Amino acid sequence: MTQGVIDGRRARGDESRRAALAHAMDLASVEGLDGLSIARIADAAGQSKSGVAALFGSKERLQLAAIDAAQALFTDEVIAPARAATERGLERVVALVDGWIAYSERRVFSGGCFFSAASVEFDSKPGAVRDRVMAALDAWEGYLTVSIGYAMERGELPGLTDAGQLAFEITALLDAANTRSLLRETDVPYRRAAVAVADRLVALGAAPATVAPLRR
Amino acid sequence: MTQGVIDGRRARGDESRRAALAHAMDLASVEGLDGLSIARIADAAGQSKSGVAALFGSKERLQLAAIDAAQALFTDEVIAPARAATERGLERVVALVDGWIAYSERRVFSGGCFFSAASVEFDSKPGAVRDRVMAALDAWEGYLTVSIGYAMERGELPGLTDAGQLAFEITALLDAANTRSLLRETDVPYRRAAVAVADRLVALGAAPATVAPLRR
Repeated sequence: MTQGVIDGRRARGDESRRAALAHAMDLASVEGLDGLSIARIADAAGQSKSGVAALFGSKERLQLAAIDAAQALFTDEVIAPARAATERGLERVVALVDGWIAYSERRVFSGGCFFSAASVEFDSKPGAVRDRVMAALDAWEGYLTVSIGYAMERGELPGLTDAGQLAFEITALLDAANTRSLLRETDVPYRRAAVAVADRLVALGAAPATVAPLRR
Repeated sequence: MTQGVIDGRRARGDESRRAALAHAMDLASVEGLDGLSIARIADAAGQSKSGVAALFGSKERLQLAAIDAAQALFTDEVIAPARAATERGLERVVALVDGWIAYSERRVFSGGCFFSAASVEFDSKPGAVRDRVMAALDAWEGYLTVSIGYAMERGELPGLTDAGQLAFEITALLDAANTRSLLRETDVPYRRAAVAVADRLVALGAAPATVAPLRR
């Protein structure tokens, strides 16, 4: 085969893989990662079962690939814009919270935040899928914790001694907003979560003007 | 048939139903409500498939019965003890939070809080099961909100104007403690949630001595 033919096949393979993963992430956000199967994804993406099987091999490899793709999408949707728009410190923490709420609200995934769903689905099922979900959660919570740490170093949260405690509280409020908003089909929980984070930051000594984006 | 024979059969039917529901609740807390089936429950409870089918009829009726049974158990484990041990007001709010954490920590269900799992599993699946899960959540959040309202009436939370906002924050922290503790196999998230609620109540003007049970 000429290089041109090989490159063409590889490009089509990448395209098929991207399309299959987009369907896999969306289906998993509604039905759970356990609802994924080679056959369902082939059906949803309009591809042959043997083609999808060739791309992923097994259900577990499909689940792991969907988790990696969802993590990359989350980084593009939430972390990268906050990094680009703000300096390190409290302003970035506020941008991350605001960006997370906007990401969940615009239903990037039909079933809301992919990781909120996956973490609850796999919390009591040890194995490779749970480990990968946990690694993705660690990356997000770690980035949030480090960002809170910079705000502490800059003296922007004088009442806080434990960045991990605040990261726990913030992710708890965001996950609850996601779940309750889906369940009740209302955006009230997002406003409640944003107000709760803003009040908590002010109680820790944050300047009210810095948290203003959360009081829309 | 004599009344004695009928009563005996009814008693055995009640016993089979109770045993089947105990397995259904526990299995659903790990595998999700969608993982329930007449066949799996018959197998887990050591009963015949036709016997379990006669008790519940369909998968959906089995799911609804499991939700009702889990709600009754939650009331017995968390709400009733707090009501028995405390007066209306802040002391009862603290007892509810403390009791919820103890209930989740002692793994009444193998997969942690039944409703934390069910609400995320069904948040984007409209239907009878979601409606029943939502009704059970409403009952718990409603009871917590009313209890917070009594504390406000008694002047125990002078900084609070919206009982629903605080109920949202508390349930968010409790659900997150449950999920993260299961996922990471540690009790640190429970301590973080308890401290977060205690700090929040004190920031709202609660007497530190009243929230002391949360600072174990």
